Amino acid sequence: MDAERLERQMNFIVEIDKVKQVLRQTSVIAGDRYENDAEHSWHLAVMAILLAEYAEGASIDIFKVLRMVLVHDLVEIDAGDTYCYDEDAALDKLERETRAADRIFALLPDDQGRELRALWDEFEEAATPEARFANALDRLQPLLLNYHTNGQSWQKHGVTSDRVVKRARPVADAIPGVWDYAARLIEDAVDKGILEK
Amino acid sequence: MDAERLERQMNFIVEIDKVKQVLRQTSVIAGDRYENDAEHSWHLAVMAILLAEYAEGASIDIFKVLRMVLVHDLVEIDAGDTYCYDEDAALDKLERETRAADRIFALLPDDQGRELRALWDEFEEAATPEARFANALDRLQPLLLNYHTNGQSWQKHGVTSDRVVKRARPVADAIPGVWDYAARLIEDAVDKGILEK
Repeated sequence: MDAERLERQMNFIVEIDKVKQVLRQTSVIAGDRYENDAEHSWHLAVMAILLAEYAEGASIDIFKVLRMVLVHDLVEIDAGDTYCYDEDAALDKLERETRAADRIFALLPDDQGRELRALWDEFEEAATPEARFANALDRLQPLLLNYHTNGQSWQKHGVTSDRVVKRARPVADAIPGVWDYAARLIEDAVDKGILEK
Repeated sequence: MDAERLERQMNFIVEIDKVKQVLRQTSVIAGDRYENDAEHSWHLAVMAILLAEYAEGASIDIFKVLRMVLVHDLVEIDAGDTYCYDEDAALDKLERETRAADRIFALLPDDQGRELRALWDEFEEAATPEARFANALDRLQPLLLNYHTNGQSWQKHGVTSDRVVKRARPVADAIPGVWDYAARLIEDAVDKGILEK
């Protein structure tokens, strides 16, 4: 038994509790409050299980997708949530998040730190079928939340439908069977007046 | 493309957003508020990845463990959280949760509903190595949270250390390499005066 190894794992488990306090710009459907990164990551993971059958690429590794979505927002403990339509904040997002990844994953025993860091890098690069699927889920989920909260965050930030369509594009590429559904939600949101055309 | 199938999957994804509003009795470490079931499930999933190497049973299927912990609390959307030291509530817990499972998993297409229901049943029966590991994580995680919030929920409910030790027992059986660590936390909590002897 390697006591130092376990100690580092436990310290990491305690550290990442902080992700429960990182708020996103979307509200949960069930309550009048912002969603946090831990809830969001959980939601993506369940979605990955259910929507795996629509993923582009026949031999997609869903176990890897799960591990990827579960850790994809840990960097926001230090870097904070960057609102997806905030172009200024996007400028130094990668730098802030890379610094965060350097610190956070280094808390773990080396082998596990490298493993989780590699998953985060893969997610960010969005080049593999697993990372493209995970990224597409990360675009689809807030669309669902926005639609079912009467476009709360769209309206707050004055976002228009063309930007929402553009933002949701990875869904068309990585989960093509779900794209029609997503496009219909966006159209319907415009028709209902909860999203500006 | 089966439109009804996708519709059911999406409705389920929207329905389970409600689990983000089901509060537990433990507080998050980072903030002065109760943890909800979605955050808790996310935390267990990351713990499963990190602590897999300590699981009893050489060929444990961590992919299955992840799916199991991700859905283990969905029944609480209807049944609510039952505080683990509440003996009255425990009496009809299984009945309430079974009714909830009957409703919630039936929202999905039959094959997926059966699959997730089987995972929940397996978790509840705690007979397989995967379910025992998942249950042990479910005992270990609130112990960590309680310890790191100065025993907040222990004190609120007047819980004594012998009950905490008893409650944590599945950790000794399913994650034996972590038991000493857990037992030391409990002893230390008593020494610090945040848990009654």
